[in-house]
Amino acid sequence: MQNSPLGFFDSGIGGLTVVRAAQTLLPHEDIVYLGDTARVPYGSKSPETIRQFASEDVQWLLNHQVKAIVVACNTATAHALPFLRETFRTPIIGVIESGVEATLADPETDRVGIIATRGTVRSHAYQHALAQRRTGLIIHAQAAPLLVPLIEEDWLDHPATQAALHTYLDPMVDKGIDALLLACTHYPLLIPTLRKFLPPDIRLVDSATTCAEHLKTRLAELNLLNSSNERGKLQIHLTDLSEQFEQLSRRFLSHSPGKIRRAVL
Amino acid sequence: MQNSPLGFFDSGIGGLTVVRAAQTLLPHEDIVYLGDTARVPYGSKSPETIRQFASEDVQWLLNHQVKAIVVACNTATAHALPFLRETFRTPIIGVIESGVEATLADPETDRVGIIATRGTVRSHAYQHALAQRRTGLIIHAQAAPLLVPLIEEDWLDHPATQAALHTYLDPMVDKGIDALLLACTHYPLLIPTLRKFLPPDIRLVDSATTCAEHLKTRLAELNLLNSSNERGKLQIHLTDLSEQFEQLSRRFLSHSPGKIRRAVL
Repeated sequence: MQNSPLGFFDSGIGGLTVVRAAQTLLPHEDIVYLGDTARVPYGSKSPETIRQFASEDVQWLLNHQVKAIVVACNTATAHALPFLRETFRTPIIGVIESGVEATLADPETDRVGIIATRGTVRSHAYQHALAQRRTGLIIHAQAAPLLVPLIEEDWLDHPATQAALHTYLDPMVDKGIDALLLACTHYPLLIPTLRKFLPPDIRLVDSATTCAEHLKTRLAELNLLNSSNERGKLQIHLTDLSEQFEQLSRRFLSHSPGKIRRAVL
Repeated sequence: MQNSPLGFFDSGIGGLTVVRAAQTLLPHEDIVYLGDTARVPYGSKSPETIRQFASEDVQWLLNHQVKAIVVACNTATAHALPFLRETFRTPIIGVIESGVEATLADPETDRVGIIATRGTVRSHAYQHALAQRRTGLIIHAQAAPLLVPLIEEDWLDHPATQAALHTYLDPMVDKGIDALLLACTHYPLLIPTLRKFLPPDIRLVDSATTCAEHLKTRLAELNLLNSSNERGKLQIHLTDLSEQFEQLSRRFLSHSPGKIRRAVL
């Protein structure tokens, strides 16, 4: 069981930023990644549809004998995590809890900005989890639906991205925030742009890195860390294959994705 | 048969611009519209996946006893129309042929710009159809993947949209074009912005209006025009329902969409 692979899923290729962080922290783990590129994105869709798709994704990973599952997608975590945990017995780890804990790790933080998909913002999952852990927090949550297509287009320093960031971030920066929570697994690619764009005293918390750290802790608690000393293998399966998804996989992983396979759900 | 409804389908709500144009030209036709919002967009996905989804969409419409089908989606027309016509016996009308004919209606036009999704541009369907009809044409085709999310965000006059238009259109405007073919059913909403952005001598050809005109001609040829004098009814079915899709439907139709139903494919 310990030496079975970890399963990761996302609506598309954004979750590969979580895989990249996990490969650094947990180099001996084998990983099976499922990206539902045929139905990407989830971020603009209804909670019912997201729960149905997420259940199919988990079932597919369970058929591949994974020991634990990472929901490497903020929208799916926001809308489906409690439902998935009720439905399936395998340990399932989302991206929200760890992001919230990392945001509040600094006891001085009491004004938090959140950017995410429309679905994640509407779910109130982050706002609720933050408010539960610290009373009196001021939270500004902003849906930023243009950021995913801008990142996928690799327009990281494009004037269109600057213009979108002004619309999304200026109001919360003007009001004052101590930390900005990047609540979408695409956003780590935007960190260099955001560092230049934002005042230097605003701390960036990225849900991909924090999720990988949380995953390591949870696997140790569950006695599920891989005992091998060999480098773990990564298998990527996508429900739709295209040249574009292959190129994106390379950018999001920042190394070769190897042979990508087509998954049928 | 003549008084059966017309079936329209699109990956999402963009095809409602074709419905709007058809309602003006063919006010007595009943229309059943299917938007595959659970799997939207098609424009970034592979030809195989688009053909599979389009077949499922057509089958769903046929189960609703439609007399003819309009593929109100450029990407689906580009990748799936010949396949759909081989597979199904009902008349199926796409958006490309009529857009190409309207572009070449002016015999002086010999430099054509095309903007579309990545999938439509890669299919070469427009480039091929244009070149077949007029030799010596100069064609500039540009994938413009940011325009759909910018239009859906209603950022029609936003600096981000201006910046994206500069990147997409300046190179072809600099080289010189006589007409710009708007080869995505979302783009009619951008026409006022484009009129301000482009030099006034560039003619805009919009695939939604031209498709509705072509539909009227084809229905007359096939003796399928509705003989009723009553105002036609519109039924919208979406594979995923959300508040956002309802708002978008209102904007794309420019009138109330009525009660939107959930479709199960």
